[in-house]
Amino acid sequence: MKKDIFIGVDLGGTNVRAGAVTREGRLLAAQDAPVEAREGPQAGVDKIAGLITQVMGQAEGQLQAIGIGSTGPVDRDRGAIQNPYTLPTWENVDIVTALQERFGVPVTLENDADAAALGESWMGAGRGLPRLLMVTVGTGVGTAFILNSTIYRGIGGAHCEGGHIPLDPAGPECYCGAKGCWESLASGTAIGADARERAMTHSTLMTKLAGGDPSRIDATTAAAAARQGDAMALRVIDRAADYTGLGLVNLILLFLPDCIVLTGGVMRSFDLMETRIRAVIARHNVLVPATQVELRLAQLGQEAGLVGAACAAMQFLEEQF
Amino acid sequence: MKKDIFIGVDLGGTNVRAGAVTREGRLLAAQDAPVEAREGPQAGVDKIAGLITQVMGQAEGQLQAIGIGSTGPVDRDRGAIQNPYTLPTWENVDIVTALQERFGVPVTLENDADAAALGESWMGAGRGLPRLLMVTVGTGVGTAFILNSTIYRGIGGAHCEGGHIPLDPAGPECYCGAKGCWESLASGTAIGADARERAMTHSTLMTKLAGGDPSRIDATTAAAAARQGDAMALRVIDRAADYTGLGLVNLILLFLPDCIVLTGGVMRSFDLMETRIRAVIARHNVLVPATQVELRLAQLGQEAGLVGAACAAMQFLEEQF
Repeated sequence: MKKDIFIGVDLGGTNVRAGAVTREGRLLAAQDAPVEAREGPQAGVDKIAGLITQVMGQAEGQLQAIGIGSTGPVDRDRGAIQNPYTLPTWENVDIVTALQERFGVPVTLENDADAAALGESWMGAGRGLPRLLMVTVGTGVGTAFILNSTIYRGIGGAHCEGGHIPLDPAGPECYCGAKGCWESLASGTAIGADARERAMTHSTLMTKLAGGDPSRIDATTAAAAARQGDAMALRVIDRAADYTGLGLVNLILLFLPDCIVLTGGVMRSFDLMETRIRAVIARHNVLVPATQVELRLAQLGQEAGLVGAACAAMQFLEEQF
Repeated sequence: MKKDIFIGVDLGGTNVRAGAVTREGRLLAAQDAPVEAREGPQAGVDKIAGLITQVMGQAEGQLQAIGIGSTGPVDRDRGAIQNPYTLPTWENVDIVTALQERFGVPVTLENDADAAALGESWMGAGRGLPRLLMVTVGTGVGTAFILNSTIYRGIGGAHCEGGHIPLDPAGPECYCGAKGCWESLASGTAIGADARERAMTHSTLMTKLAGGDPSRIDATTAAAAARQGDAMALRVIDRAADYTGLGLVNLILLFLPDCIVLTGGVMRSFDLMETRIRAVIARHNVLVPATQVELRLAQLGQEAGLVGAACAAMQFLEEQF
């Protein structure tokens, strides 16, 4: 008998990946391709279908269901991607029906951050824990909450946006409407902006690392200079760490999760930030067991989204019966 | 056949109440008495047992289970109250075993804020809604989250403390460890402190309402003066409303609940604050359907804790089988 296979699709703004996952969570095969969103959603759906056919061929199993973790706004109820922002031309694209007709199996659609968090909960850093929050700190800041191995959804199935909780009314304005939200203070984008501003008026290794042009400094430059002990870069990283700690304190006080899984590009510098992050958390330990909440780095890397989307597919199939 | 009765006990720092509730959520009888915690926990347990016997006599049913909603830290696993703060001498008091032995039915212990939220979810403002947050703004600020009709619990069963999320790093220090947490900015205590400070240096109706002594101004004085249009009092109330809005924005972004139920003494002035609270929420409506989250005032008043504790008892009994 052929083994059951669940397909996970991770649809980002730049690349799309598909993976074949067993019921036990093993990723047997994965393939990726550029999305080239501007070619239109039909070409994109064809491309995704092609990747699925490829990985199914490699996995040699029986396709059971397909899960898609997609960037940006998704309409789960209608199975449609609503994302003209990071997927230009992808507005109101009913990817669920398209893939259902093509492969004849149930298809479900999730937000990509939710899918990645589900992946880490199932097979990664959060395995076996009932309450897991995942925080992605990259270009933006995103959160996802996995409760008892399922994605927590808000009103109307909406994806929560913990990266935009206001942390400091004196902070910068964000497109989200807030002043001083987490993303505006501690995302990679925010770190880059803070670093550039300091480099305008102060001499710093960051400028040298950016080829002498302070306008080319970004979060990666800041982290690299901080590693070499540059005082100004350390201040940038420390500020981001303090706000990251403050964001985590909010999550801890409201959810008291077993574990917070950290991921995203900025978290590659977690070691530079860890001491200050933990100090901020320890300072808020009076009323809740804040320091019992484990901070862990994500373990599945790029595979989290694939494995999580496959897990969502498996759960979706079970719900059908 | 006698009807099934579930007892809810609401144990506060000053008074204790017991109520007899049917399986349908009807409160048939209620009695209260002063706690007089200083007489010791044994006298307190006797008093609670007496109240239970009284209301069972009035309700004329068959006792099934007892639920206690208690102020302050409770250890649910051990069934013990750990509250030397608001219940002096009540440290490590195993009230669960004491009542179990006395009445021969299952007994469960909850935090009082959780019990009240469960009551509003079952029979009050949140009836039929899957995701409910309750925010109590009184002497302090507390939150409770009810998901699918059950109390959300954090790590180790701990009660979450959303009233202490940091909202403004420029705010006052709180005993919780935070600077500018919600409670330090918008609780009744915080409103009183802000009002007194302003009255020290400015002429205001608040001083007159406090008998000419600005040190006697409290949140109630501020609300009363604001109702009469006093400019300084309005500033106090507006500031509290803005921070309340900011606290609610945090909850909305992280939970996207169907409904937030507001209760506590300060929320008796909700009408004075509503416009500003809603304006703050509307400003954070870009990424999430923030204005779809309903704000409602609690409906059960003092009975919420009783009815909720009885509901917890009923759920606890069901878990036994």
